[in-house]
Amino acid sequence: MAQISILACGGTLDKDYDPLTGELVFGHTHLMELLNQANHTLHISVQEIMLKDSLLMDDADRDLLYQACSKTPNQQIVITHGTDTMPETATYLANRAANLAQKTLILTGAMRPFKLGQSDASFNLGAALMAVQHLPADVYIVMNGQVFSAHQVQKDRSRGVFLANTEH
Amino acid sequence: MAQISILACGGTLDKDYDPLTGELVFGHTHLMELLNQANHTLHISVQEIMLKDSLLMDDADRDLLYQACSKTPNQQIVITHGTDTMPETATYLANRAANLAQKTLILTGAMRPFKLGQSDASFNLGAALMAVQHLPADVYIVMNGQVFSAHQVQKDRSRGVFLANTEH
Amino acid sequence: MAQISILACGGTLDKDYDPLTGELVFGHTHLMELLNQANHTLHISVQEIMLKDSLLMDDADRDLLYQACSKTPNQQIVITHGTDTMPETATYLANRAANLAQKTLILTGAMRPFKLGQSDASFNLGAALMAVQHLPADVYIVMNGQVFSAHQVQKDRSRGVFLANTEH
Amino acid sequence: MAQISILACGGTLDKDYDPLTGELVFGHTHLMELLNQANHTLHISVQEIMLKDSLLMDDADRDLLYQACSKTPNQQIVITHGTDTMPETATYLANRAANLAQKTLILTGAMRPFKLGQSDASFNLGAALMAVQHLPADVYIVMNGQVFSAHQVQKDRSRGVFLANTEH
Repeated sequence: MAQISILACGGTLDKDYDPLTGELVFGHTHLMELLNQANHTLHISVQEIMLKDSLLMDDADRDLLYQACSKTPNQQIVITHGTDTMPETATYLANRAANLAQKTLILTGAMRPFKLGQSDASFNLGAALMAVQHLPADVYIVMNGQVFSAHQVQKDRSRGVFLANTEH
Repeated sequence: MAQISILACGGTLDKDYDPLTGELVFGHTHLMELLNQANHTLHISVQEIMLKDSLLMDDADRDLLYQACSKTPNQQIVITHGTDTMPETATYLANRAANLAQKTLILTGAMRPFKLGQSDASFNLGAALMAVQHLPADVYIVMNGQVFSAHQVQKDRSRGVFLANTEH
Repeated sequence: MAQISILACGGTLDKDYDPLTGELVFGHTHLMELLNQANHTLHISVQEIMLKDSLLMDDADRDLLYQACSKTPNQQIVITHGTDTMPETATYLANRAANLAQKTLILTGAMRPFKLGQSDASFNLGAALMAVQHLPADVYIVMNGQVFSAHQVQKDRSRGVFLANTEH
Repeated sequence: MAQISILACGGTLDKDYDPLTGELVFGHTHLMELLNQANHTLHISVQEIMLKDSLLMDDADRDLLYQACSKTPNQQIVITHGTDTMPETATYLANRAANLAQKTLILTGAMRPFKLGQSDASFNLGAALMAVQHLPADVYIVMNGQVFSAHQVQKDRSRGVFLANTEH
């Protein structure tokens, strides 16, 4: 069985409530707890690249993620990422995909933090880990139970879902 | 987008604790609540075929499920099912797959009930709904983040996971 | 059995995560869901006075709460309230307690919203509802498993707990 | 502040789901996790006396609990216990209360296990810890938000609540 890399970049999925400030903050990634609940038998390595609100990510951050995608010998890569700029990061990576040595990259995330309960995080990660094993090499977003091509997706912020941007 | 049928057969996924008896029991399927949390945008119809512990399912039950798979016009079918006899039901359906009009059937379930929290149900359903959209017509089990062929899978009850039975 | 009034004023206890904005917001009070989980057999009436972050409460709000305390015929009153200015509201009410017709007023709240799971809300409400049935008429804060007199309590914001202010 | 003893005897409160057997079982007590969520500032020592379904408790078990109540120097004692024979244990202890050196004993428990979520455990423990600090020395049951005297209580199994047995 091929090993899968999960590269954690933060986003809503990994936030938790801080009772002292009343704010949603990042501590460490909760992916290990999520994966443990999932009772999976995959070969997964989790790497924390950064824990950021995706609205605060810039091209230096995206380059850091790109470098991590390049360096890992694994060809199946799932990236957890904030939803607000997930399409921008997908495009950034897709534009460099020629250098990514036939890797399948899946970006996913959550609309409600895993640690707050009643979250879409586990569903999304289950879908992403299935997609990364079956889709041909390229860059995709997996959200809402669907697969979107990196160049043909946008977030509908009023509804909190992703849409295929077919005019692209 | 193709419509997906989810056929609920019960199993651990759909059990809940009854405070009056201290037992785990079936009420109604909790799949709508799970799907609502998942924030999906798929076209899904949920049909409750039966809510049974899979150790109590017999061939009459399996035939009922087979009939439901046959009748639905949808070619993408996810079946939620108890884990203990999931391989038996997968084999039962696979032996009749020639009649299933090129449909993709995915059986999935959970090791911990959705309503008890910290469950693998959402992860498994996310994986199953992704698999059903991308795998060729046949009968599969999706558990533990993996896809298993109907004829080549067994449950390792001592570890609570599914294994590919390669000698088959 | 005497009827108990719960007057909801909001605070952290009643906030929930809004997936569209990524903010913690008020919808409606979640006290009915909390009380339903609690499996209580008390005679309780819940009244939503306001749903506010307690840092945004002013004396007009406190007067509104005072009027509600005065009007209810119930002598046992639990007030759910944000923790940041809970001592101020307790003092405000205690200064008018002579007019409160021998009523026992208990302010309580939570450091983590009920709807985010792993919250102290149920523990605190259980303690408050017990205290209101057994303490003599006066104004108290019940937090952290303890009872504090209205005039002798402060919140230690660095630790997120209440302390008896014995110098008062 | 007086130190409070919590003596864990098991019951529904401390059960958890075992995914391998599909049964509700005891591992270790979950009271530390519950107390940590509660954000309390009491001085509490937790002692695991036994983890048993209360239907399986006999007088040897009750004597063991009685000995633990006698031995602790703390005068405030909360006992977590299965609900089915909670009145029997309360009576057993009350009949020996003369030897309990003016201690306040509160029995409490839960109708839904803490680890299954949406449980009444935190509410009940909050109420019990408040009651133990304010009630005179004697033996009580605290459930459903109410205090019951050891000799005047029964469980209504059809409704899953405790009732004052006033004819006693």
